[in-house]
Amino acid sequence: MTSGFEPGQPIEEIDTPVLLVDLDKLTQNIKLMEQITNAGNIPYRPHTKTHKSSRIAKMQLAAGARGVCCATISEAEAMAANGITDIHITSEIAGAGKIARILKLAAKTRLSLVVDHPDLIASLDRASREVGIDLGVLIEVDVGQGRCGIQPGADAARLAAQITNSLHLKFRGLQGYHGKLQMTPGFADRELRVRQALDLLQRTAENVRREGLAIDVMTGGGSGSLMADIKLHGLNELQPGSYVFMDSEYRSIEWPGAAHVPFENSLSILATVISLPSNDRAIIDAGLKAASMDHGPPVPCNLPAATFTFGGDEHGQLLFADGRCPLKIGDKVTLLPSHCDTTANLYDKYIVVRGGEAHDVWRLDARGHD
Amino acid sequence: MTSGFEPGQPIEEIDTPVLLVDLDKLTQNIKLMEQITNAGNIPYRPHTKTHKSSRIAKMQLAAGARGVCCATISEAEAMAANGITDIHITSEIAGAGKIARILKLAAKTRLSLVVDHPDLIASLDRASREVGIDLGVLIEVDVGQGRCGIQPGADAARLAAQITNSLHLKFRGLQGYHGKLQMTPGFADRELRVRQALDLLQRTAENVRREGLAIDVMTGGGSGSLMADIKLHGLNELQPGSYVFMDSEYRSIEWPGAAHVPFENSLSILATVISLPSNDRAIIDAGLKAASMDHGPPVPCNLPAATFTFGGDEHGQLLFADGRCPLKIGDKVTLLPSHCDTTANLYDKYIVVRGGEAHDVWRLDARGHD
Repeated sequence: MTSGFEPGQPIEEIDTPVLLVDLDKLTQNIKLMEQITNAGNIPYRPHTKTHKSSRIAKMQLAAGARGVCCATISEAEAMAANGITDIHITSEIAGAGKIARILKLAAKTRLSLVVDHPDLIASLDRASREVGIDLGVLIEVDVGQGRCGIQPGADAARLAAQITNSLHLKFRGLQGYHGKLQMTPGFADRELRVRQALDLLQRTAENVRREGLAIDVMTGGGSGSLMADIKLHGLNELQPGSYVFMDSEYRSIEWPGAAHVPFENSLSILATVISLPSNDRAIIDAGLKAASMDHGPPVPCNLPAATFTFGGDEHGQLLFADGRCPLKIGDKVTLLPSHCDTTANLYDKYIVVRGGEAHDVWRLDARGHD
Repeated sequence: MTSGFEPGQPIEEIDTPVLLVDLDKLTQNIKLMEQITNAGNIPYRPHTKTHKSSRIAKMQLAAGARGVCCATISEAEAMAANGITDIHITSEIAGAGKIARILKLAAKTRLSLVVDHPDLIASLDRASREVGIDLGVLIEVDVGQGRCGIQPGADAARLAAQITNSLHLKFRGLQGYHGKLQMTPGFADRELRVRQALDLLQRTAENVRREGLAIDVMTGGGSGSLMADIKLHGLNELQPGSYVFMDSEYRSIEWPGAAHVPFENSLSILATVISLPSNDRAIIDAGLKAASMDHGPPVPCNLPAATFTFGGDEHGQLLFADGRCPLKIGDKVTLLPSHCDTTANLYDKYIVVRGGEAHDVWRLDARGHD
């Protein structure tokens, strides 16, 4: 495939649809997270599911992150293949084939994963005995997300005891992540919800400690909750992901002392006008295969009169209510993703830009489900 | 990346989330399209945007298709790189970089594309003169879709004249595709809407012919409209795409003499149960990055009591209203995509299955936006 990209190429000449990463904004976001967590005196382990790029993960580690989070075994394998050695997988992993891959990876990296069910612990116990490899295990607690995770309290303590009684499973601590509160618009409301979630996690930790078991890691939090997580002292490790890119919806939430999140939108979609059917409408080459819709449509940049609507798999429509579309066929437009994680997942590469020019290409080397 | 796949592997042992293609159903769908178009005495040019696989495209060509349709230049390049020589690109292509790629491809394949604006024709004219390469051009007419396409009537005739006056652009005919009517539930309603669209296309063809210009190709139609397209004789080439896979929504529309479409669901998502938080809920490892949501949630197979809801980027929830979830941790479940095109686009490979076993792996070699 021709990539249609050359270093030094002006942005307007890059073939579309394509993802652009603004290198200066990305670098600034990574630096700011380091400053915030330093000031808060808390280690962080950024989530790579947002960007699926070992290159960006290494920038985060170079800035001071203690390791990375992954959502899948294939992401973890890609990170390890690129020299990253401290990995926590934040989703339960089940099935004999995947557990075998977990153990293979644990043999060469500092790896941990989460469990929330006795049957899963039993499977991991059996498989780790067969190969004689130790595995770091955290218990996921449902602190309000209502998805995976054991209920807070005594059940978690029983799981911790089961892990401790397993020959090769090493109990490391608790994970409590509540994704649904991350985008609570007002900070006071968000802090209240974070406090409720952390209380559930703390209560569970007390149950575990009453069994005489030590808890090393209390991990959770995200780019939205982190200022409340830091203030309330319930965790000793943060898992922010979205801050590297920020997306149009996330960025609008209130921040302590500021109207919105201080991280910049560093990711955008570049598209081309391919049709001008009327004065109030431009058709661009970015549709459902170029921008995710699970958090709504992407937001056009520098076109205040325009709204975006999906026009099919390969088409987007820019509607100009004033009937004065200023665009010509072949013009480039940029859009801010409404949700970076699911949008980035549609692409194989980032074009890294700086000063209006293409600077580099980074593969999403942890993309795909292999 | 470890692929977690071996030929002969039972489906239950394949790592997930992954796309399965049922080879027998796929073959049957391809054969049935050949029978239908033979009986209707009309050539067809299947749309590869559905599957993005040169392997499947070659099966369609071997069954009798006259060539393929692509939605993007990168799809067309991938098809050409795999020996496919007759390609029509159904979306307008703009921008100097992409036009250069079009001409490069036109030098070695029988290639056509669509236009709907004088400026685009002027750009193609200039670029094709510079390199001295002929390019097949069709005019896209808006027959009701309300997306790209010139309005039916005299404007199209002016575009045809402009093409004819260009040195290297060869006017081939008209394209009229109306995606919005494809899934009209009742056949009589669908036929009425197809008739209205075809009338607009025919009227436009008359405008063009009055200018003394011959029309070779009248192309359009889809998997939903094709029986009406055949009955009404408005086209001389069909562009069906979805029939190879069928999706849960598409399949439910009425067919002449049958309650639903005769093509089988040959594509499914295989997922694994990773958490069982309660008796009425199972969490699987297929979320927004494994199943598209633009046509609603995917449909669980062989679990009549279950409904699927998205549980985030990597999680899906199966809800059992009867409180009797029959699944265990590690169990495999299959889901029918609600929209095959956007779901397939999330993956890099198909696992081809037959008789409950993995049979082969086919790459989506035309996926990505390069």
